[in-house]
This record gives sequence, structure tokens and C-alpha cells, in this order.
Amino acid sequence: MPHSLTHENGKMGLGVLRFSTNEICCVIDPDHKGKNLKALTGIDKSIPIVSDLQEAVQLHANALILGIAPSGGRLPDTWTKPIEDALTAGFLVVNGLHDKLADKFSYLLSNPKNKGSVWDVREVLKEYTIGSAKANKLKNKRILTVGTDMASGKMTAGLLLNEKLLQNNFSSSFVATGQIGITISGQGIPLDAVKVDNAAAAVEDEVMSRQKFDHIIIEGQGSLGHPGSTATLPLIRGSCPTHLLLCHKIKETHLKNPVSHIPFPDLNRFIKMNEEVASLCGVFKRPNTFAISLNTHGLTKVKADQLIEEIQHKTGIFTSDIVRYGAQGYLTTLEKS
Amino acid sequence: MPHSLTHENGKMGLGVLRFSTNEICCVIDPDHKGKNLKALTGIDKSIPIVSDLQEAVQLHANALILGIAPSGGRLPDTWTKPIEDALTAGFLVVNGLHDKLADKFSYLLSNPKNKGSVWDVREVLKEYTIGSAKANKLKNKRILTVGTDMASGKMTAGLLLNEKLLQNNFSSSFVATGQIGITISGQGIPLDAVKVDNAAAAVEDEVMSRQKFDHIIIEGQGSLGHPGSTATLPLIRGSCPTHLLLCHKIKETHLKNPVSHIPFPDLNRFIKMNEEVASLCGVFKRPNTFAISLNTHGLTKVKADQLIEEIQHKTGIFTSDIVRYGAQGYLTTLEKS
Repeated sequence: MPHSLTHENGKMGLGVLRFSTNEICCVIDPDHKGKNLKALTGIDKSIPIVSDLQEAVQLHANALILGIAPSGGRLPDTWTKPIEDALTAGFLVVNGLHDKLADKFSYLLSNPKNKGSVWDVREVLKEYTIGSAKANKLKNKRILTVGTDMASGKMTAGLLLNEKLLQNNFSSSFVATGQIGITISGQGIPLDAVKVDNAAAAVEDEVMSRQKFDHIIIEGQGSLGHPGSTATLPLIRGSCPTHLLLCHKIKETHLKNPVSHIPFPDLNRFIKMNEEVASLCGVFKRPNTFAISLNTHGLTKVKADQLIEEIQHKTGIFTSDIVRYGAQGYLTTLEKS
Repeated sequence: MPHSLTHENGKMGLGVLRFSTNEICCVIDPDHKGKNLKALTGIDKSIPIVSDLQEAVQLHANALILGIAPSGGRLPDTWTKPIEDALTAGFLVVNGLHDKLADKFSYLLSNPKNKGSVWDVREVLKEYTIGSAKANKLKNKRILTVGTDMASGKMTAGLLLNEKLLQNNFSSSFVATGQIGITISGQGIPLDAVKVDNAAAAVEDEVMSRQKFDHIIIEGQGSLGHPGSTATLPLIRGSCPTHLLLCHKIKETHLKNPVSHIPFPDLNRFIKMNEEVASLCGVFKRPNTFAISLNTHGLTKVKADQLIEEIQHKTGIFTSDIVRYGAQGYLTTLEKS
């Protein structure tokens, strides 16, 4: 979408670029037209950057993914025209915002002449009841990614670990719980859009539907420590995790804007708190925080390595940067634990 | 509503009977027509029990509160006719179920001849953003009721403590977060129906709107320990409680059906876990679990007193039964802490 391939709101587009197994024709971003994707984003794929939908049509694109999540998750007015054009041109428009395009563009979608369609990824499609800790009885490994903050790399860590497990012929399934993970994997639950009453059951249903896998990787959302975040609790209760993978941005000392007055908690206490909540004071089996992924993006290798070692020493837990150094160390540690 | 004044699904009706300051003409329950309310329920009010809406009309009733919450929160088919009759007779119908009566009975409500109306208590009326721990900066006492299980007396304890504070001329406000509390107090947030993304902000908004009060009593929902419950986390983050009041059903050893295979956690560990989550490992001020309300309903006074003493000894925290022995001890303890 127009603007901001390099803006932090571009998480949706970057996630799809990095992980989607569908062919990606091009990126639409007039600010960066013609530039090199790898140089801009670090994503090692040769995908052209074009300036508008018409160029995308010429490259035989047939789906438009809204790659930017503006603050508040609402559709900006300036997006109306490009989406209208895409729907008229017969595109599938993939939307991860809270706003439902199926409602907003019903005047186009109801016209049989238009072959365009809409996938509102955050739409809750099922009715859920109340969670009852069914997953606690499963015998497989259920690995939940948890974070000290929002946007600390939980989805990326989960996807990379799942990919590595599959490459090594392990039985594994990734449970997407946010719009990006769902867009990438084609299934999952838009947990943020589920009602509080049904959130734990939504996670539980999804985990139970994958019970035949030896490993279930559950995409974490938010943080038990973030004042705006609720999702971690139903993720813990719904998945009854056996393992936690903690994601932490080492460059930061405080939560992200607009709560940047709130410092991160002490890592060791935070790890214990997550485990104590998950084990419900000993009622369930205590999950093992088997590894930490430090997000060392933007640091030199020397500095990154030093901080990784510091955190590993402080916590006594295997620590690396899963994006920088890959998932092999995580797989080895997981299988030993 | 027909049947079940004495059934545990009747929580909504019993809560309104016990606490509403609006005049209550009668209870409709054909199974108990003509019986004595106090003998049946322990509620010391002389309100007649009648068998149908026609009798309520003769008593000049003008509002019908659906007093029963069936499992799953869905409207039973057998209720359609009485609700139609009430709306046709010009009643306000107060509905705490997830189903929206405004939609279901739109064919009646849209007819200008009918003067009946509907209050769907669980409808989320505001748009919320993301919580940011604003309440942490307030200087008042924020007392959150928490429980070891669902339906362990959190609303009742909060209402009784608020009532006692007001009787003693303290400045206090009760924040209702469930359909019964909202129906009784006329305001609040239907937290169970809010999306996960906005739950903490919903609580925060409501608490901030009461910031002029020296005491804010926040009605707890569910439990950090219940596998189907999500609401406690946004309640903690949104209210930034300074005090916790723990509610516990002493007759039980396990959670309620359908999770009755899950034992209650050790009380001392559970109390610490709630405090540790609320203080976010020391980032926020640690709330003080200043008191415990044991639900000793159905036990002899001797047995109740013995259990109260045992729990107080085990936890070192002031313990009583706020329903059986009143709120004075809680007020005294709160003001000292």
C-alpha cells in the first residue's frame, strides 16, 4: 500500500513478505518505487517495488494485501480509492484491520459484474463457548511464544521455529493468533477481535484441532506485562503450554510508545511470573521457559553477542537471536528439554 | 421469569432483588407463586411472587428483568412469548444475555404503537482504544475484588463494601463490570462482551471517569485461575488496584462444573500470584490483599467460624464472610491498610 514500507506500522506487509509461501508479484510503495527490497528491509527476496495498482496489474497480481496497520487499526480515508480500484479490477483484497471491508465496500461486492472479493482476516467466524483446559491432557509439546512487550518478535520466532521443526521432519503445526500470522498461514484465530468471554475457548479449540501434531507452536500476542494487553492470559489458559519461548527487545529499557514511561520488569521475575500463572500455582504442570530470543536488530554483531551472553548468564536460559542466528539452537534446546 | 427462582442460574434476578434501589413490584416464578421470598432465598424483603406477566401488570410493574442466565447465555425459545407480551404491554425489558433483544424483537420495537423498549445490558456502547495504566497515577484507593473461581461472590462483596463506605460517609464509587452489576447500578461496562484488544482500556476508561472518588470498588470477573476466564487480567491492568479483596467458596475444593476436575490452587500462592501480576514484578506498586471474604453459605455458624479462623491463620489476612457478618470489619481493615 502507498507509503511506509520502512515504517513500523508496516508489520503486516513485512511479515507476509518474509514468510508467505504464496508468490508475491510486487510491493506497492510510491515512496520507494524501484528500490531494492533487501537493502530497504533486510528481506532477501527479489521482489520489485512499484508505485501503484496499475503497475501491479501489469505484473499479473490478483491479490492486494493491506500491508500497513495504522495506529488504532482503522482504515484511512485515502485507502478507499485504491481498494475500490482493486475490487473493480477483480482482486482479492486481504484486510487485517478491525474495520470490515465486506461492509464498507458492499456496494461494489454486491454487484455481480465485479469479480473482486474481500478477506477480512480479523472477522471472528466461529462461535466459542468457555475454555476448560482440555489441552492440559495432551501429551505433545505446546510451545507458546511470550514477550515482554507488544511487537517483540513473538510471531517471527514462532514461525521460524515451526519452519525449522518441519525442515527436520518433526511433526509440528503453527497456530496463528493475529492477522499477520493468519494471512501467512491461511488459518488461525483473530484473538484480538474475540470477546473476552470466549477468548480462552477460541485458543483451546484451535489447539485441540491440532492435537495430532507432536509440536504445536502457538503465536503469542501482547504481554502479561503490557497495560493494554489481555491476550496472553487466554493464550496461556487455552493452550496449557509445556514450553515458553520468551521474546525480548534488548535495545529497549521501557515499553513502546504510548506507555514508554513503564520500564520492563526484571527478566527473571517476569519469567517466573509467566510460569507461575501458567502452572496456576502448581495446579497444572509448570511450563519450561526453554529459550529466549533477543531481538538485537540494529546492533553490531559484537554488541549483540555480548548482550546475548549477558542475558543467558543472568537467566540461565539458552539465549540467541532467532532472526540473526537462526532456529537450530532453539530446536536443539527444545528437543533436550 | 418463569421457573428457577431457586436455581443457581438465577444469579441475575437474585442480585437485583438483593441490591437494586429501584422498587421491585414482584417476582414472576410460577413454580414458587405465593411463597415467601425470604424463606426461599434469604433476601429480607417482602416482595410477592406471582405466576405470570398479567399479575405483574396488575401490580403496576413497568419493567421486566430477565432474571435467569441459562448456560451459554442464550435466550431460550420459551421466553419469546412472555417477552413479546411484555413489550406489547409497554414494559422496559432488561436483558443480561449475550443475545440482543433489540435485534430479535425489532419487528415489535419498530412499531410505533408499541411503547415497550429494551435494555440490552451486555451491549458494548463505546469504542475503546488501548489501555495505558493511567489509573496507576491516581492517589485514591482502588479495590478490586478477585476470586478463586467464577461465581464466588465478587460482585456481592464489592457492592456490600461500597454500601458500607457510603453509609459511613466515605467517598466511594462502584464500577460494575458484569450484566448484574450494571443492571443494579445503572452504569458500568459489560466486560465479557468487549473485544480482547480493548478490554483493559474499557476498565481504565471507567475507572478514570470515577477518579474524583477516594475509593473506587471494581467488580471482579472470573478468576486468574479459571481456564475459561480472561477478564481478571484487563481488570488488573485497567484499574491498577491498590487493594485486592479475595472471594473464596470454602465449601468447595475444586472449580465449578464443567471444570470440576481442577482443584483450587493453594491460597497463599494464589494471593501472591495475583499481587505479582498486578505489581508486574515490581514495576507498579504491589496491591495489598487486605481481606478475604469466605462464602460460608449453607454451613452452621460454628463450622463457618472455625473455617474463617483457619483461613485467617493460614494467610495472615483479615477473613470473614461479608454476607453473613457484614462489611464493617472490611471497612475497618481497609482504612487501616
